[in-house]
Amino acid sequence: MCDPHALAKLLMSGDRRSLARAITLIESSRPEHRTEADALMEALSAGGVRQALRIALTGSPGVGKSTLIDALGIMLTQRRLKVAVLAIDPSSVRTGGSILGDKTRMERLAREPLAFIRPTPTNTVLGGVAVTTKDTVFLCEQAGFDVIVVETTGVGQSETVAAELTDVFVLLVAAAGGDELQGVKRGIMEKADLVMVTKADGVLQAVAAQTCAHYSSALKLLARRPSDPENYPQAVTVSALEPASVESFWTHLKHVETWRRDSGVWQMRRARQDVDWVKSELRERVLLRAECDPRYRETVANLEAAVLRHGSAFHSKVRAQLREALQF
Amino acid sequence: MCDPHALAKLLMSGDRRSLARAITLIESSRPEHRTEADALMEALSAGGVRQALRIALTGSPGVGKSTLIDALGIMLTQRRLKVAVLAIDPSSVRTGGSILGDKTRMERLAREPLAFIRPTPTNTVLGGVAVTTKDTVFLCEQAGFDVIVVETTGVGQSETVAAELTDVFVLLVAAAGGDELQGVKRGIMEKADLVMVTKADGVLQAVAAQTCAHYSSALKLLARRPSDPENYPQAVTVSALEPASVESFWTHLKHVETWRRDSGVWQMRRARQDVDWVKSELRERVLLRAECDPRYRETVANLEAAVLRHGSAFHSKVRAQLREALQF
Repeated sequence: MCDPHALAKLLMSGDRRSLARAITLIESSRPEHRTEADALMEALSAGGVRQALRIALTGSPGVGKSTLIDALGIMLTQRRLKVAVLAIDPSSVRTGGSILGDKTRMERLAREPLAFIRPTPTNTVLGGVAVTTKDTVFLCEQAGFDVIVVETTGVGQSETVAAELTDVFVLLVAAAGGDELQGVKRGIMEKADLVMVTKADGVLQAVAAQTCAHYSSALKLLARRPSDPENYPQAVTVSALEPASVESFWTHLKHVETWRRDSGVWQMRRARQDVDWVKSELRERVLLRAECDPRYRETVANLEAAVLRHGSAFHSKVRAQLREALQF
Repeated sequence: MCDPHALAKLLMSGDRRSLARAITLIESSRPEHRTEADALMEALSAGGVRQALRIALTGSPGVGKSTLIDALGIMLTQRRLKVAVLAIDPSSVRTGGSILGDKTRMERLAREPLAFIRPTPTNTVLGGVAVTTKDTVFLCEQAGFDVIVVETTGVGQSETVAAELTDVFVLLVAAAGGDELQGVKRGIMEKADLVMVTKADGVLQAVAAQTCAHYSSALKLLARRPSDPENYPQAVTVSALEPASVESFWTHLKHVETWRRDSGVWQMRRARQDVDWVKSELRERVLLRAECDPRYRETVANLEAAVLRHGSAFHSKVRAQLREALQF
């Protein structure tokens, strides 16, 4: 595909097309691309590792993730900060596959030279998302981005993936009656540093404040984590339409970051994430190696034939064959 | 833990405690339980394979999944049909971890002797959900259940998992303005046999009809699948409060099932699903085998040490070590 060293150099100089090419390379599962990706990653890390502020931002469809990221991103690029947005759920960006996908989102930010927006494919094998997104975060850091937002929809596994590769976790929720808390999984609440009630402007302002109070109470039910500054996790209201509100969002993020860096929590968290990541990368490689083994491929073909012959994957003959398959 | 043959016999006679014990056994990742689970599955399939109607039911939190399943389940058990509900998202059942989890859901159905409700843990390794749920579906079939509902929240990977192990796919959506379509991923729409606008009663009735018309139009944008009866996929309104509406839901499900069985689509779909399942089961076993290898464990320990020494999983020395790790 290309010379990994040349690509690494261009990427580190801030060339966006090189960054896009590098991401495409690491997303590929073709064996020759894997080798090139390894070489690229090694070339990139040889000169030291840069570190951005990584933010996970999660919430149900329609809650206003894109609008808020757009507003925050514009504010930060105006301050000459480089902002990357990686959307684990591809339907939330323009190039994604939502039914009414022609409606533009983050359209102001997409035009900013200091911003980079990229959907991460979710149609790979399970587990692949985590590995690919982690690599993409690293590529963005080496390309000199200051802030990286990993955006996901709030349900399923994607928010767990996002939490495992970011420094701060933000949960967006809609202004609504108190009963809506029911829909939020405890697991997500426990990850959150900030629970933000969105669209806190116009007619929704009073409802948003009320919802925010409900979430404040709910957060108090959770055990305090030693990794949190005082008064965090915190529920706040936010309006993407009001610059002061977006500014306050940024202040919260910086406060959590600074506290964690000063206390050493930040570094410990990254080390633990890195260890977890290395383990999942190793698992991924074990699988890739198996799939390249001709005996493995023969086993798969035999199992397929057995399933079709016996009419069910659960037939005792298929299960016996599956058990014997791992003797090779 | 127990004699697999005795457990299989009790399970097939319809004993619910044995079914619950069998599910707990297959969900365990302990090596000795894996061996017992294998023996159990083999004992269960030796006498032939029973087949239930498997329904995937997906939708965002709050859309009314539990209420509709409760109403449908009660109707079916009154007709002496045995109904199992497997919730991939555990927050939707009583035993799950939602913040206000004390609020009972599916409370009528939970008391029915012909019904069985079970959350499926999602906190296992990625990929594990699919394998475990498929096994659980099989256990319920062998226990003589006629209808198995696999319930998931509509975002993330869970709905893909559900689609891959069921015969009919139902997407529940809330009555709302047309713009809400934006939040539905194209991938989910493309899987749906039925898009059902819930809570079509009282003040929401007119809005539900309007939303339903929007989804009808959206469905027409999708390419017709050869696996569909005429006029399907279809958008309809439903009210869990009205018996005639629940009855109509069941009629739709039976119509799709009958057409697919008669056309041979149903059998082909199950065969493809079974082949896919055997492949992922094989992958899972490759990983388990690797993790039992002392050289693998040593590699993990060395990699952990390297990450902590060099301060980043992306350091070139860590990457080199990772690459060499697979030489064993």
